[in-house]
Amino acid sequence: SRLSTVSAGRLNGKMREKTLTMDTLNPQVKAVEYAVRGPIVIKAGEIEKYLEEGGTKPFSEVIKANIGDAHAMGQQPITFLRQVVALCTFPELMDSPSFPEDAKWRAQRILQGCGGHSLGSYSASPGVECIRKDIAAYIEQRDEGVPSDWENIYLTTGASDGIMTILRLLVSGKDSSRTGVMIPIPQYPLYSAAISEMDAVQVNYYLDEDNCWALDINELYRAYQAAKLHCQPRVICIINPGNPTGQVQSKKCIEEVLHFAYEENLFVMSDEVYQDNVYTPDCQFHSFKKVLYEMGPEYFNSVELASFHSSSKGYMGECGFRGGYMEVINMDPEVKAQLVKLLSVRLCPPLAGQAAMDVIVNPPQSDEHSYKQFHQEKSSVLGALADKAKLTEQILNAVPGIKCNPVQGAMYAFPRIFIPPKAVEEAKALGMQPDMFYCLRLLEETGICVVPGSGFGQKDGTHHFRMTILPSIEKLKVLLGKVRDFHISFLKEYSALE
Amino acid sequence: SRLSTVSAGRLNGKMREKTLTMDTLNPQVKAVEYAVRGPIVIKAGEIEKYLEEGGTKPFSEVIKANIGDAHAMGQQPITFLRQVVALCTFPELMDSPSFPEDAKWRAQRILQGCGGHSLGSYSASPGVECIRKDIAAYIEQRDEGVPSDWENIYLTTGASDGIMTILRLLVSGKDSSRTGVMIPIPQYPLYSAAISEMDAVQVNYYLDEDNCWALDINELYRAYQAAKLHCQPRVICIINPGNPTGQVQSKKCIEEVLHFAYEENLFVMSDEVYQDNVYTPDCQFHSFKKVLYEMGPEYFNSVELASFHSSSKGYMGECGFRGGYMEVINMDPEVKAQLVKLLSVRLCPPLAGQAAMDVIVNPPQSDEHSYKQFHQEKSSVLGALADKAKLTEQILNAVPGIKCNPVQGAMYAFPRIFIPPKAVEEAKALGMQPDMFYCLRLLEETGICVVPGSGFGQKDGTHHFRMTILPSIEKLKVLLGKVRDFHISFLKEYSALE
Repeated sequence: SRLSTVSAGRLNGKMREKTLTMDTLNPQVKAVEYAVRGPIVIKAGEIEKYLEEGGTKPFSEVIKANIGDAHAMGQQPITFLRQVVALCTFPELMDSPSFPEDAKWRAQRILQGCGGHSLGSYSASPGVECIRKDIAAYIEQRDEGVPSDWENIYLTTGASDGIMTILRLLVSGKDSSRTGVMIPIPQYPLYSAAISEMDAVQVNYYLDEDNCWALDINELYRAYQAAKLHCQPRVICIINPGNPTGQVQSKKCIEEVLHFAYEENLFVMSDEVYQDNVYTPDCQFHSFKKVLYEMGPEYFNSVELASFHSSSKGYMGECGFRGGYMEVINMDPEVKAQLVKLLSVRLCPPLAGQAAMDVIVNPPQSDEHSYKQFHQEKSSVLGALADKAKLTEQILNAVPGIKCNPVQGAMYAFPRIFIPPKAVEEAKALGMQPDMFYCLRLLEETGICVVPGSGFGQKDGTHHFRMTILPSIEKLKVLLGKVRDFHISFLKEYSALE
Repeated sequence: SRLSTVSAGRLNGKMREKTLTMDTLNPQVKAVEYAVRGPIVIKAGEIEKYLEEGGTKPFSEVIKANIGDAHAMGQQPITFLRQVVALCTFPELMDSPSFPEDAKWRAQRILQGCGGHSLGSYSASPGVECIRKDIAAYIEQRDEGVPSDWENIYLTTGASDGIMTILRLLVSGKDSSRTGVMIPIPQYPLYSAAISEMDAVQVNYYLDEDNCWALDINELYRAYQAAKLHCQPRVICIINPGNPTGQVQSKKCIEEVLHFAYEENLFVMSDEVYQDNVYTPDCQFHSFKKVLYEMGPEYFNSVELASFHSSSKGYMGECGFRGGYMEVINMDPEVKAQLVKLLSVRLCPPLAGQAAMDVIVNPPQSDEHSYKQFHQEKSSVLGALADKAKLTEQILNAVPGIKCNPVQGAMYAFPRIFIPPKAVEEAKALGMQPDMFYCLRLLEETGICVVPGSGFGQKDGTHHFRMTILPSIEKLKVLLGKVRDFHISFLKEYSALE
């Protein structure tokens, strides 16, 4: 490594070293891990290139089930959303008879909120005012009348940006007063990555796999008490519906979390980007904010809560637009001013993403021209996802050595996989997590790219992988069949070695 | 402040305090300042609301000359750029005869590089591959054949995002080994804000106002030596053409900076977002990379250089798309992998911004249908900016007590203003910087919103403001006339007090 830092340049006979090396790199950056786009995905990209260039493998294509990227898996955009964004982008289309009036009306309204009536101007840092108002109205409707103040709404560049921003405010202190951030395990690795980058303390609370990944309040207390010995837990993050775990939390569970946060003086971050992705009829999405409201004013006027949403998930799957928002309640007014200041340094979230978000919260109503097509497209996407959630669970559970909780919501299955001791040993000899070894073998032999459970966190001695349920039903069946065959032969290979 | 942290909530008789208060807020966030959207701009927004609601002032509208937001000031978008982005957004338009073939061809090509051929999919974290290739080709052409490797190109969410990301890699160390970041004074306050947020050390080098804001190499050495006593200077930032100062650096000056960086082992960050904004015939934009190349392979193969560009400035002014890219050369390969990892946590820059960036680097060629209109629109914007740069300088310099260097490039004038001692005293009594006092008075009395020089940094005892040259020529004349009248009466008022 020393050698690699010596550059090719020389002047006056003296060697010039690089300024930025692995030795001088920000150690917090070094500590970041992000499995969803980690080594296995880089490997998948290499194999794709190899196939494109005429190389041969036991398969003809790589299937990327590593990331919730709906359009990349063939899901079609919602026509109405794209019409509105196209109209905003190129307002000359307002004269085109092929665009419906309800789309034009929305585009006109958004543009009226933009400087110079252009999507090319900066918006205010918290977002375009009329879009913030539409979001607040949407939340009030979703939460059956619980009030939402548009000045508590902040547009973001995807949900990740909002999550990072709120964490940035909360992170402070040194040594035992360092901010502890409570996160579920398994978690979406944005959280652990942000915690590493900001040098906060990750405080794990484990979801109960045997109970369909439910959040157990006793486990929260355990984690909190243990953390208090070496840091100051100040925030609890919840992902509901769960990523990577796909569970939908009960109202009772949410109440318990909020009560816990109230008692222990924690800031609550509720990642609700999958709020439209609930598949099983016995489950329902409850927003943290609504539950807080129903707990009474002592709670509703006091617990600091930031809730996150995104254009990337749901039925629209518009990841590339980087749209999102957060609603922040009970934040100290002075801190709010600091939040706005911090947001202003990055100027504003992308306007096309803001426009997309507006359509999501303000879709065609039943008396509007575009309603029928919109409704059809939305139901078709959500219906297919529900079918695929069921199918995935069923097929995986029929494989010996794989056990998968019901995919109640979100876009992922997170099955537990049995890895024979001999395979565990071989992985360890290679300096690899056993499930990374498993997933790499799966990729090399079948072209299927999934993410090892170790990238999300899991109980010691257990192994999992996360796969999306996004491929078309035909492709998903092929994928699941290949996973089954691979798993059976993997078990056979390593059990034979015993 | 203690009082304000006590929330309304009570349970079991115990008071519940807020978790996140000014006392517990991340101190690095507290330290951030960002004048371009600071208190004066918040005040301007309040006055705007007041006028909208029927309030009266000695003026009928607020003119926001605080930020380089071209479209908000009435600049029209480049038609071809918007056509391509609209086609990418709503590919059904490919069948429309009202879109030219050259736009369709580009949109098709961009979509082919997107997952599922949709702008709604995530791109690879460094950006869409074909766009990275187009950018590399553009840079090679701009730099007259100096090689550019597309794998060194990273799309970003505006230039700010790229600048923050590179700084994030470079920031490390404690106490006297803390990273020092050399920045020009006056500077664009993204730099000081990022340095505060990341807890690095800001190392000021002063531009030479008496010499048209030139960068003086002796001043660089002075600043470096002084900083070495308490930190480790590891990076030098240059803004060329200058923001807020509007100067265009000579080739000789760039050579000196690069030689200095070579000798002192500094990482070079060259903010070149105004590369298309050069107005005076005796000035020319020289990219840092090209100059480095011409200095020979000892330099070109060794100095670590990141250069930044944006869709927000130039002749297109597409701020809302949040498009941008950086080219990074000579970065240690292991560090590069860390950079990609860091980028991957935020998933990807907005796809519409990437598409906009592609049009900017791959505009219509002379044999293409859209060339004529594109060329006309581009020349018209740049021609008007050149006129307004000249006009601004001339009118300001005719005012007693204002002295303005030529606006050679970028989008701003940064005139020095004489503030009478009595006004300085009054400002100080109010706990305010004298130029903040001046700008607030200007805003209250004329509706003109400009940013005090103290927000960018300036030599002690000098005062300035930054204004954009973006308003239409008619509005700019009104604005400058008002500034003149205000300044004269301000001088009179406070000189009469002496």
